[in-house]
Amino acid sequence: MNPNDLPSPWVLARRAARMNPSVIREILKVTERPGIISFAGGLPAPATFPVAEFAAASAQVLQQDGAAALQYAASEGFPALRERVAALLPWPVDPDQVLITTGSQQGLDLVAKVLLDAGSRVLVETPTYLGALQAFTPMEPQVVGVRSDDGGLNLDDLRAKAAGARFLYLLPNFQNPTGRTMGEARRAALAELAAELRLPIVEDNPYGDLWFDQPPPLPLSARLPDGSLYLGSFSKVLAPGLRLGFLVAPPALYPKLLQAKQAADLHSPGFNQRMAARVLEGDFLERHLPRIRALYRSQRDAMLAALSREMHGLDVQWNSPDGGMFLWARLPRGHSALELLPRAVDAGVAFVPGAAFYADAQDDAAAQRTLRLSFVTATAAQIDTGIAALARAIRATGPRP
Amino acid sequence: MNPNDLPSPWVLARRAARMNPSVIREILKVTERPGIISFAGGLPAPATFPVAEFAAASAQVLQQDGAAALQYAASEGFPALRERVAALLPWPVDPDQVLITTGSQQGLDLVAKVLLDAGSRVLVETPTYLGALQAFTPMEPQVVGVRSDDGGLNLDDLRAKAAGARFLYLLPNFQNPTGRTMGEARRAALAELAAELRLPIVEDNPYGDLWFDQPPPLPLSARLPDGSLYLGSFSKVLAPGLRLGFLVAPPALYPKLLQAKQAADLHSPGFNQRMAARVLEGDFLERHLPRIRALYRSQRDAMLAALSREMHGLDVQWNSPDGGMFLWARLPRGHSALELLPRAVDAGVAFVPGAAFYADAQDDAAAQRTLRLSFVTATAAQIDTGIAALARAIRATGPRP
Repeated sequence: MNPNDLPSPWVLARRAARMNPSVIREILKVTERPGIISFAGGLPAPATFPVAEFAAASAQVLQQDGAAALQYAASEGFPALRERVAALLPWPVDPDQVLITTGSQQGLDLVAKVLLDAGSRVLVETPTYLGALQAFTPMEPQVVGVRSDDGGLNLDDLRAKAAGARFLYLLPNFQNPTGRTMGEARRAALAELAAELRLPIVEDNPYGDLWFDQPPPLPLSARLPDGSLYLGSFSKVLAPGLRLGFLVAPPALYPKLLQAKQAADLHSPGFNQRMAARVLEGDFLERHLPRIRALYRSQRDAMLAALSREMHGLDVQWNSPDGGMFLWARLPRGHSALELLPRAVDAGVAFVPGAAFYADAQDDAAAQRTLRLSFVTATAAQIDTGIAALARAIRATGPRP
Repeated sequence: MNPNDLPSPWVLARRAARMNPSVIREILKVTERPGIISFAGGLPAPATFPVAEFAAASAQVLQQDGAAALQYAASEGFPALRERVAALLPWPVDPDQVLITTGSQQGLDLVAKVLLDAGSRVLVETPTYLGALQAFTPMEPQVVGVRSDDGGLNLDDLRAKAAGARFLYLLPNFQNPTGRTMGEARRAALAELAAELRLPIVEDNPYGDLWFDQPPPLPLSARLPDGSLYLGSFSKVLAPGLRLGFLVAPPALYPKLLQAKQAADLHSPGFNQRMAARVLEGDFLERHLPRIRALYRSQRDAMLAALSREMHGLDVQWNSPDGGMFLWARLPRGHSALELLPRAVDAGVAFVPGAAFYADAQDDAAAQRTLRLSFVTATAAQIDTGIAALARAIRATGPRP
């Protein structure tokens, strides 16, 4: 929007010109049409939300501790929740390093505020999480994509691009959008390279608990505790509607992140934090996570089977994620996912074109053939129907002339 | 903090040097000592929190609508809550202009992101809300204080300082920190002047419903709907622990604020929004607000009576707010509120030194004599004890040599 298009007297900040509507959120509006099977949104399966546990926790919190739960609270977060987070992480973390955030999206906003100046260089995977690009954009950085393959970052390209970067942002586990995971050898080499290059790492791990057969390798933050910021979320293991996430920061960075948090929203809802802390008591996650994993694995398997069956004879490629919520596919040469989308929606199915996730290569022909398919929102039966509809739309579309 | 003080490899953004711990939050830590009577925090009286109504609403929301309440949701906010906000405001507002925020503090963060470049001029009252200064600071503006008196802004000083300002930020009702309210004549003149100068207004109104004898005059936003952004809060009429506020924006500004909101935390907790919408159904506020007003009026009266009784013979001045949560006092010449504070805490009472609220005149001798006294957190009996202790501390301290 041009400031001159505004009625007097407003003048927009320069950064506002770079802030644009989320492509995904615009697509999600289309997919809300009745009857559309959506592989588009990153919406956890509502069947996994512990509604009864929340109802019990809410009643207990309000009855036993209502006044405190509804009052202003410390910006750092509710002590019992910070302690629980620290205890759940697979490396030694002091609860004083844990900052509770309003979803892990807020963690990205705080990181950008504290670490990015206009023009600062930030390295990201290719492709990467769109919400991170949106959180970084208001601080006007130069975002540089590092080449990536099925095993994660290309370390040669990382070395070539690292000079002067404020940090490398990455999702090593069941990445959004690709579903891929960085293996142990690549992590070990990356940790070594980051230490050598003095390259800080911002590690985003919302999906790490959603593994299907075995846990992913140890986080990078466990290997580089002073050189990493770690972001986690309760959105996938409890529920997104509470808006609770967390940040684990080296002691030297924590005070500035805390001040940014105070300025951003004073604190995350104390009521929600107490509910979450109560639900997480005891062995809840040990009982709950296997159910989510089993459900999502069955949905992944349904999608893989449907793809094998329905894409027969089409030169469509896809991967087989070991966890998380997303599968990554590639259309035949000459096809465009963006052009396919309206035809797919007409056929009753939606997805997100992959180009949106490329920080600096959205016009790349290879990027334009990609699509992200979420396998956790639709049921197995809907997945069968939806993938069949997608295959029909691909066949009907054909390559661009 | 100097970036060079950090262990490798982190480099802080330039703005981080301007971000500092909240003076108030640091003071609040002191006041958490057992036995301290606190006039320091802006904490609503917990007796006003509708705990039973929240418990009923929470149970209903989770039982009837649990999956939706716990899922990701629209960044704009829960439709029924946006409609309720629009209906409650005393001028015609379309629900599409309402953006639900994570407390009104987040509204200030979004406003700063969308409207402030580094070096942008922002006008504020003298003194003004410290949280606004903290929200604006990360965008590196030049904050300019406009002279103010008991009736609000000095319009001559405003005219002299308005050139090039991105906006004027003010709290016309029962202001934080002073408790003062801008009268009808000053509002009418300010609205006329703002229109003449093409000066945008950001109007913050968290306390407007907390009037004691009669409602305050119509908001400035009602007079300048296209030239104003309006911020409201549920923290004082429901409870702060839900972290729910809202922003009312002219249609031309709304899309960019929405995009900033998406990037900041995707959306405010849908569970909390549904609870609030349910509690606000029917005539709840018509029953609830009179109780808050009566309580806070009785507490204000207790503080005024205690001040008259205990400050006898001391040249201490104070005002008599018509609503809200705060009273503003001034120590005798030669005294310093900052130096008084530790002695007051030793005597068992805490307050916030007023200088923290002066954007660009914290070293001013007059500013250093001021203090903010919250009358809503302590009971009437505690107010009597606390004001007596404060008077003893003032007598014991004496003027600076």
